[in-house]
Amino acid sequence: MKDSSKPELNMEKIVSLARRRGFIFPSSEIYGGLSSCWDYGPLGAEMKRNVKDAWWKAMVHDRDDMVGLDSAIIMHPKVWEASGHLSGFSDPLVDCMDCKQRFRADFIDSKTCPDCSGELTQPRQFNLMFKTFMGPVEDNASIAYLRPETAQGIFVNFANVLNTSRKKLPFGIAQIGKAFRNEITTGNFIFRSREFEQMEIEYFVKPGDDEKLFNYWLEERLSWFTSLGIRKDNLRLRQHQKDELAHYARDCYDIEYYFPMGWSELEGIANRTDFDLKQHSLHSGNELTYFDEETKKHIVPYVIEPSSGVDRTVLALLCDAYDEEPDKNDTRTVLRLHPSISPYKVAILPLSRKEPVVNIARDVYAKLRRFFSTSYDDAQSIGRRYRRQDEIGTPYCVTIDFDTIEDKCATVRDRDSMRQLRIPVEALMTTLQAKLNGEPFEVLPPGGKHWLGF
Amino acid sequence: MKDSSKPELNMEKIVSLARRRGFIFPSSEIYGGLSSCWDYGPLGAEMKRNVKDAWWKAMVHDRDDMVGLDSAIIMHPKVWEASGHLSGFSDPLVDCMDCKQRFRADFIDSKTCPDCSGELTQPRQFNLMFKTFMGPVEDNASIAYLRPETAQGIFVNFANVLNTSRKKLPFGIAQIGKAFRNEITTGNFIFRSREFEQMEIEYFVKPGDDEKLFNYWLEERLSWFTSLGIRKDNLRLRQHQKDELAHYARDCYDIEYYFPMGWSELEGIANRTDFDLKQHSLHSGNELTYFDEETKKHIVPYVIEPSSGVDRTVLALLCDAYDEEPDKNDTRTVLRLHPSISPYKVAILPLSRKEPVVNIARDVYAKLRRFFSTSYDDAQSIGRRYRRQDEIGTPYCVTIDFDTIEDKCATVRDRDSMRQLRIPVEALMTTLQAKLNGEPFEVLPPGGKHWLGF
Repeated sequence: MKDSSKPELNMEKIVSLARRRGFIFPSSEIYGGLSSCWDYGPLGAEMKRNVKDAWWKAMVHDRDDMVGLDSAIIMHPKVWEASGHLSGFSDPLVDCMDCKQRFRADFIDSKTCPDCSGELTQPRQFNLMFKTFMGPVEDNASIAYLRPETAQGIFVNFANVLNTSRKKLPFGIAQIGKAFRNEITTGNFIFRSREFEQMEIEYFVKPGDDEKLFNYWLEERLSWFTSLGIRKDNLRLRQHQKDELAHYARDCYDIEYYFPMGWSELEGIANRTDFDLKQHSLHSGNELTYFDEETKKHIVPYVIEPSSGVDRTVLALLCDAYDEEPDKNDTRTVLRLHPSISPYKVAILPLSRKEPVVNIARDVYAKLRRFFSTSYDDAQSIGRRYRRQDEIGTPYCVTIDFDTIEDKCATVRDRDSMRQLRIPVEALMTTLQAKLNGEPFEVLPPGGKHWLGF
Repeated sequence: MKDSSKPELNMEKIVSLARRRGFIFPSSEIYGGLSSCWDYGPLGAEMKRNVKDAWWKAMVHDRDDMVGLDSAIIMHPKVWEASGHLSGFSDPLVDCMDCKQRFRADFIDSKTCPDCSGELTQPRQFNLMFKTFMGPVEDNASIAYLRPETAQGIFVNFANVLNTSRKKLPFGIAQIGKAFRNEITTGNFIFRSREFEQMEIEYFVKPGDDEKLFNYWLEERLSWFTSLGIRKDNLRLRQHQKDELAHYARDCYDIEYYFPMGWSELEGIANRTDFDLKQHSLHSGNELTYFDEETKKHIVPYVIEPSSGVDRTVLALLCDAYDEEPDKNDTRTVLRLHPSISPYKVAILPLSRKEPVVNIARDVYAKLRRFFSTSYDDAQSIGRRYRRQDEIGTPYCVTIDFDTIEDKCATVRDRDSMRQLRIPVEALMTTLQAKLNGEPFEVLPPGGKHWLGF
């Protein structure tokens, strides 16, 4: 449930801020844009990198039971035969016989066109994979597809990864990469676009351990989202109904986020059983099994799949962080992003563009940027500069003023509370490091020397 | 020039090591592979991440004059009209009238088929862009292309980035991402594949400053490659001849690396003049200019483009690091990778799987992995474990043995010299951190306490 003290957020505000401040632009905008395609601008590119790095660190580097993979977007066409995508990955479409428009049959209530009330054809299945041609001749032999999910790149590499990494069950293979779906109905900003980025894990387990480990991953993935600062109240688990379940899935939950358009999927966590490995064994003629040292038998592992969207995570983080608060005659817009996600951790704001203030500011900037992503802004009033940093979610501003020359201290301003503290320049690095690592930003007693100490 | 004391390297050794140790696998291998497509396995995925992170840090984060971008792979088709790719990005192909095979006309010396000596057709231009269809209908209106270079995503976002980042000339926009070219002739492992990853900078300068800044970027980019440990002798600059220059380029150099197949392009650095911005202005009807505060005039900046391949950089690093040295009855294969590029920085090798050795080892592992990418290996003899780590380029191995219980020291082994030192467990983190940052690994006098000190 949304915090009821907060006005309901509408998506236009997020789209507008994202564009105005260089997070996300409509793709090919100078040519009128390309339907539901988006480009990440300077701040968005940093934020997206932060999301992916946080995922990779938590899911791969911090775990003993996970390795990474980076497989190609274009795969052998037989992969999609085996996975079932070629025959089954489709939406039912209807045409209007009058105005010739196409619609998804399952999104239309009536038998007549929602635009012109014309008569509709019977539904026809339309495959969602983007098709292309490899090599110089456009014939059936050279058809290739852009992957509609990164998962299959993991399954077809199962034996190679197992042999080279020598992992024991349970273990996972993690991958981040682009996927493409020729969706008919796109929209809600970056929530559903035809080109998107996935963060997927295929976690291989002994059959019988799958239920327990499925539940483990539900908890694990939920807590990853809250570790990025997303409020628990805006997240929920929703179990798929029997009739929603993919044919290969024994169980599936969505982690849903309370987006402006309502509760929607942020991540899917499925028990895919041994379906994929068995299908690829069958279609490739290569046995994809695991040798169990205990029972001395070859087994086909079950798979738990936590599958998340990078773009949806970015959108959830923007929505969750977005806040407006009345401030004097004005409204303060602030992105309360978790520091690990903010494009910049610190901004250096000199109150003068002349020596010696600018020298001190430049010096502080040079030192801090070695440790944190740091911005330097000397344009316009300090008030406007604070607002700019608030809007892009910079947790701390460091202001160098004329007093700094005398007292060797700078003013550190906290984005969320707007409290300001005078900190010795010498102690900035350690202070900010500690603060960014999550210690509370407390007001110190005057002359509180322990800023220097910790 | 290659070091003449080293036996010539052949590509098969690199391909074999890459596959055996999980750096790079043939894509869709269980289905017989897909021509010239490759998947990065667990170690390759880490190495590729390291290359991209090193580039992003040096080119974006460490500079004041650069911002990042992450634009979509599928762009508006008009982008490729304006850029000239639709009309001009093609290879001449000939067909054999007998065996029906196709060849690149410029790669064939004779008038007859190199395979069956049949007669060849006249050359026909074949566009290298991958074509696909967006939306449910396959007609001309919905044709889209996979980008053949990331550069155009930067040009079409020029105004958006300028307006939101408020950068002054000269400044650059940097991007890493996938690009696709339907090459007829691929090969040399990951050197030329149809799907590849680029690291591109478009650096915008005032006309007139372009020559000076072009030379600056030649030096800058060369030194980036040597900063990753690539030997200067294996790198050279080669200026394009007038007849090689693209129509938009005033000047162009390749940074070439001495690959096993000979000197080949690692990066291209071109002076693209104002060609691209002017073309997109013309085709989009949007003025893409910069307001020069000094002259109070709107100008069209010139562009210097350092354009590099991620996969080629990975290949150059593997080739440059690969070494074989005679060792007792055997040959030691070692990847002398720069620590910033190695998949693992440190490996923890316990000499026993029992308490208390395993407890100490696990404890050391838990502490070190918070700071470095660390591997834990307790399988087989210590000699074989050293060899495994040598082969994947791990700079330091930390062996925990029975003496550790008494003397609280571990053996640190240096990959390149194979020298071993006894280091207090307490000092491992700071010691390894200093060593990985590039301080020489010196043999200390017995009991040299200053390992603890620095």
